Amino acid sequence: MILEIADIRITPGQQAAFENALQRALDTVASQAQGMLGWSVNKGVESPERYMLQIRWATLEDHTVGFRQGPLFPAWRALIGPFFAQPPQVEHYALVAQSS
Amino acid sequence: MILEIADIRITPGQQAAFENALQRALDTVASQAQGMLGWSVNKGVESPERYMLQIRWATLEDHTVGFRQGPLFPAWRALIGPFFAQPPQVEHYALVAQSS
Repeated sequence: MILEIADIRITPGQQAAFENALQRALDTVASQAQGMLGWSVNKGVESPERYMLQIRWATLEDHTVGFRQGPLFPAWRALIGPFFAQPPQVEHYALVAQSS
Repeated sequence: MILEIADIRITPGQQAAFENALQRALDTVASQAQGMLGWSVNKGVESPERYMLQIRWATLEDHTVGFRQGPLFPAWRALIGPFFAQPPQVEHYALVAQSS
């Protein structure tokens, strides 16, 4: 299992519209992606235009190849891309440990 | 519930020692903090010196006041601080939505 963390900065004042668009993108597009195991969305307390989107993938390639280079990506980006104030910073992580 | 995300960059080559120290700091120090609900540690795939420490707190002040300004913090920082290549970037987040 690989965790994608996308650090997203949106245009000020667009929080409600972005949250609706992201929910739709997750429900209608990402949910169809091979190896997409689950997700969470958190919004910044100190930085109200900052969102942390975390998506669990079965493998790294399910995200970097299957999703990003596959047929779903244009629809995903069309829904949420218009809100980005700058390109999201996206990296992948492996679980070290977690509390029970 | 508030999510703390600490974006940590450690000294190259110190991964195993840092992971041991962090586990000890979580088990022996953070576990005693008021309002500390749970945690996860992930390590970077693209950036092998990068760790994302996520801690769930009952309230923002449980972290910012109770823990950071309380008696546990010196022991916490003494265990993991020596590994930091730069000051961690720490912000707090509120849950917007997550998959079932």
